[in-house]
Formats: sequence, C-alpha cells, structure tokens
Amino acid sequence: MKIDGTHYRTIWPDRGDGWSVHVIDQTKLPWAFETVRLIDLAMAAHAIRAMQVRGAPLIGATAAYGVALALRADPADAALEAAIATLAATRPTAVNLAWALARMGRVLRPLPQAARLAAAYAEAAAIAEEDVAMCAAIGRNGQGLIAEAAARTGRRVNILTHCNAGWLACVDWGTAIAPIYAAHEAGIALHVWVDETRPRNQGASLTAYELGKHGIAHTVIADNAGGHLMQHGQVDLVITGADRVTHIGDAANKIGTYLKALAAHDNGVPFWVALPASTIDWAIGDGVAGIPIEERSAEEVATITGLGADGRLTTVQLVPPGSAAANPAFDVTPARLISGLITERGRCPASEAGLAALYHRPA
Amino acid sequence: MKIDGTHYRTIWPDRGDGWSVHVIDQTKLPWAFETVRLIDLAMAAHAIRAMQVRGAPLIGATAAYGVALALRADPADAALEAAIATLAATRPTAVNLAWALARMGRVLRPLPQAARLAAAYAEAAAIAEEDVAMCAAIGRNGQGLIAEAAARTGRRVNILTHCNAGWLACVDWGTAIAPIYAAHEAGIALHVWVDETRPRNQGASLTAYELGKHGIAHTVIADNAGGHLMQHGQVDLVITGADRVTHIGDAANKIGTYLKALAAHDNGVPFWVALPASTIDWAIGDGVAGIPIEERSAEEVATITGLGADGRLTTVQLVPPGSAAANPAFDVTPARLISGLITERGRCPASEAGLAALYHRPA
Repeated sequence: MKIDGTHYRTIWPDRGDGWSVHVIDQTKLPWAFETVRLIDLAMAAHAIRAMQVRGAPLIGATAAYGVALALRADPADAALEAAIATLAATRPTAVNLAWALARMGRVLRPLPQAARLAAAYAEAAAIAEEDVAMCAAIGRNGQGLIAEAAARTGRRVNILTHCNAGWLACVDWGTAIAPIYAAHEAGIALHVWVDETRPRNQGASLTAYELGKHGIAHTVIADNAGGHLMQHGQVDLVITGADRVTHIGDAANKIGTYLKALAAHDNGVPFWVALPASTIDWAIGDGVAGIPIEERSAEEVATITGLGADGRLTTVQLVPPGSAAANPAFDVTPARLISGLITERGRCPASEAGLAALYHRPA
Repeated sequence: MKIDGTHYRTIWPDRGDGWSVHVIDQTKLPWAFETVRLIDLAMAAHAIRAMQVRGAPLIGATAAYGVALALRADPADAALEAAIATLAATRPTAVNLAWALARMGRVLRPLPQAARLAAAYAEAAAIAEEDVAMCAAIGRNGQGLIAEAAARTGRRVNILTHCNAGWLACVDWGTAIAPIYAAHEAGIALHVWVDETRPRNQGASLTAYELGKHGIAHTVIADNAGGHLMQHGQVDLVITGADRVTHIGDAANKIGTYLKALAAHDNGVPFWVALPASTIDWAIGDGVAGIPIEERSAEEVATITGLGADGRLTTVQLVPPGSAAANPAFDVTPARLISGLITERGRCPASEAGLAALYHRPA
C-alpha cells in the first residue's frame, strides 16, 4: 500500500543489483520510516529476530529470501541446511516461518548446487507474490461487507479493528485491513476505530501508522472503549485477523479480541475474522480448550515504550515495584460470536460446514 | 488501610495543631508517598483541582475541610459563600463535591459567625467519619461473597477489579475494594487481578499500590486480558465501583467495565457493583440511553506517563502524528449483566425492586 503517496511492499529485492533485499525497519515505526538492505544470512536472521520484520506472512517471506542470501555465499548442502536451521531458530513459534523454510528446502535440496541460487530467489519471490495475491483476494472478498454497511446506513461506515493485521504484517494489503483498503479504493467512505492493543500497542503504532500514511480516516481508542461505541451505534462492523482458526471456526487472536466479539454480539454488530488458509488448524476443534496461549513477559505490561519529549524512544514503568504483572498474549473467540470468516477463497460461516464448503480438510 | 504496616486515611486533621489538614499527594503515587499539609482555602482548592486528592468521597471531604480552613481566615457570610463557590468550581462534574458543599452551607449559614469555625470542623469530620462508616459497611456486606467463593472453590479466591475504587478514592476502605480488605482481615486467602485501566491507568498505579502496601496478593493485567482469564476459570468474582447507578440498576463506571461484565456473564462469573447510596441516580432508568458520558482529552489516549529510567515522571507519545484519538471516559453496564449491588445497607439485585427493598426512592 502507500506511504505518503508512494507504493511500498514490506519486502522487495533491489531493483538495481537484483540480489540484495530491502525491508522496512518496523522497530522504528511509527516514529521514523527507515529501510534496511539485507545482504547476507546474518542480516536476514537478525531482521526476524530483532522484529525489524514481524507478522507471520512477512516473516515467512523474509526467511525465504534469507535462504537465497545464504546460498550466494555457499550453495552446498551443509550451508543450505545451516541457513534453514539458523532462520528457523529466530522465532520458534511462528508457523509461517517453518512453512516457508520447509518449502524452500523441498524445492532446493533436489537441485544441483549451480541451479540453487536462481531457484531460491524465484521461490522466495513466489512466496511473496502468493501472499500478495492471497491478501488481495481477502480484500476483494471482504469489501462487500463494507459496501453492504454503507448501503444499509447511508453514511460513512465505521469499522473497528484490534491489533495490526494490515499490510505491514504481510507483504502487501494485509488480512483484516485488506477489505478496508479495497473498499477505500472502491470509493466507499469509511472510518476505522483502531484499538491501541495493549500491551504492545500494535494498533496505536502500526495500524494507525499504515492507515494514516495511506490516507484512511481513523481514530485510536483505548481497548476499553469499543463496547461503549457499539452501544451507541458508532461501530457498523468489526474485522480482526487471526493467529489460528480451528476446524469448527473458533479463532485465536491478540488478547482482547474476545471482549470485542462479546460486545459486538451484545449489540448486533457484525464481527468478521479475516484469514488465509494457512491460519486454519485442522487438528483442533474447541479453541478455548485446545489452543495453547503464549504467556509473554510481564515487562510488556509493567512498562511501555513511546516517543519521549526529546524525540527518542523512551520506556517508562507503569506498575509499582513489588506488584506482579501477567501477560497472556492471545485469547480465543468462540465461533458462536463470529459472524463469519473472510478468506482468500471467499466468505463462509465460522463453522465446520462453513470451512468445509471452501477447503478440503487434510486427512 | 495500611501503608507498610502503618494505618492511614486519605485525609486527617493535624493531631498537634488541631486545625491544619493533611492529605496524601496522590499525583506522586505509586512512585513516592508524600503528604501535603493544607493550611488555607487556596491549598484545599488546589489539592482538588490538581488531583492531589481524587475519588468522589475524598473530594467531598477535602472540600468540607476547605470550607473550615477558609472560615479560619474570615467567618463572615461573604467569605463563606466565596469559599463554597471557589471549591465548587474546582471539579465541576463531581457530584460529591456539590453535595458536601451544600451540606456545609446548610449547617453553617444559620450560625452566628463566632460559632461557625468549630461547627465547620465538626461537620467536615462528620462527613469523613460517615464515609468511613459507609465504606466499612460496604466491606462487611460484600465480604460474604468472597467467603462463599472460598467455600465453593476450596482454594484462594481470585477477584478481578477495574479502575480504582479503593481506599485512596475514599477516606478509608473504599467501595469495590472494601469487601476485599474485609475478607483479607477475616483471614480468607485471596488474590486480585488488577486491570491497568487505560487510558489513565488508575488500576496499575493506584489499585496495585494500595493492595501492595496493605499486603494483599495481586497481579496487574492489560485491560484486554480479563475475558481470557475468565474463560479459563481464573476469576471467581468481579467487583467494581460505580460512578452512577440508575433506579433500575444500570451502572456507569470507568470505560471498559461493560466489557468485563459481558465476559463475566458469558462465563458464569459473578459480577458485583459496590456503591454507597449517594451514587444512585433516582431520576434515570435506562442508563445507556440516559447517562451522559464525559468525553475526555484525546491526549490521555495519545500519551502515557510513567517512571522514566532517571526516576522522574515521564510522558511518552503513543500515537503517531496525524492520527486522531478519542477518549470516552465511562461506559454503562446494563443491570441484566450485574449479579447484584453491594451497598452500605446490604446486598440487593440490580433492579428497581432490589433498590426499593433497601432505599426509599425520593419523591
């Protein structure tokens, strides 16, 4: 999408040299826009580990290009396996990371060493392009919900979202935000309520940044505010992303998503979850019972980082000494609270039958 | 309650001189414990305006003592009226402030000037003592809910609360936290989940501070986390305060309370609201439609203040330049989501009949 009128992706091969890879340094957002030129495996691994890139699809694409960068130095079997192992260890829990590396290995291992480098760049590019196409399809498939809300209300559509499931988490478009970009391109008047999304504030920093730079009207709110806005008719539609969706349609997403789903249900506001096929976990049914929830560092709750008066990133303490803090990072929204799923193949009910109509469940 | 083993109230007349008034400077909490000695009307008005004292009952008591301090300088009618007007203008929307000043005026106006000073101190002390007695009664009346949860679960009781409705907001005990102190004194093992309560973080700062200093086990969580904890059986009881309760039992409280009530209802967790009689608004029925909600400064969402690495209070920016923020400060929890009300007269259902059984509705 656009930053101040210029089109960007989150990762792209250098147009001049044809081999180095650029990424946006997301640790600097929203305060500074800086890109990093990755020239070797170590830089690619660092970019993932240090969260210069984040978001499952973008991590996968960066890892794929990281393999290509490693093969420039050494295309031998041992170097290929070492590169895959190094990249896999950067963020051990990211499903897309393992998936992208497995795909690269599958393509590259059978090839003679001389053929590997070109194949690696081609496969990495394919992974990135497929992600863009998938997100664009999610956008097209969700756009109708916003058009319907505009027709129903006859005014600017108010959409609430939680966390960042925008283009900065993917290669372009995003998942939950893709329908918003698509509707905006189609000329539908809309406004986005952006949950700040404590404790890491991905909404206030990343979602607000990308919407603002693309020119989409939005307002940041405390995570506490959404229910009140829904009670007063100020939210027409909720769209969130998902980290994992079970085969019966339960959706794990950033902590607090469940509370918004409850409020949407209580106020008759449609609540949709946007996801690509890779997010579906066919092995789990009951998400509340079955999806393990990562407990992250208490420091993320006890402190917060923002821009200080001196223009530097500054971390402040929020919790008094001696007080404990806890930080469950995700929660599960039961399918009964979800109006439906927006996927790259179309929309469907959040149910076993709904998913079965779009996908073949693996044996 | 106690701070590191010493009993405190939030406001008390000097035990030596008998006329000056001490308050805890709550703008310094939770990072430093400092008291301020108020010696005249200007200091009392400043304490309220600058939020050195906050919480409706404490504001009322401080205003009452402020009138007494003003009469020390001049007990004439004009000075009395000027003092009342000055104090009334410090926080125009605080109901208890107007109530306490009206009461002081009613008592003092008919008296000869020579009798006013002693009467003013006596009335201010009565206002403070009545608040302590009322909060202690709320504690006694709510304690049974915690005892029942302990008996039901056979283990340490987990209670979730939102914002600060503790002793720091009152003269002692608090409202929502009073039952927790009472149960703790009675030897019931308990632990409190403290919502940080963005945007002003009264939970992370004040509630965590007062529980910690009194020696009560507690854990600060992001406002997003409560629903997940309830889904996993980690919350036995929710108790919050209220800023206004309608005659049918709808409760306005800090923004986000409604979301916790929805989650409690969805998971079969009892959700109780603690309040003194002064909180009941007999003129309003439907709270969502009828209670005006204060929209506070967007700066409270766009920034946050905490302790910097240099040990100073530091404010950091959280929202990128160009992004709007909105800050509705309260929301309304419908009576249907409230298990019951805990008042100084006992517990009752959150309903017209429930309130009518405890109180006579004014004509």
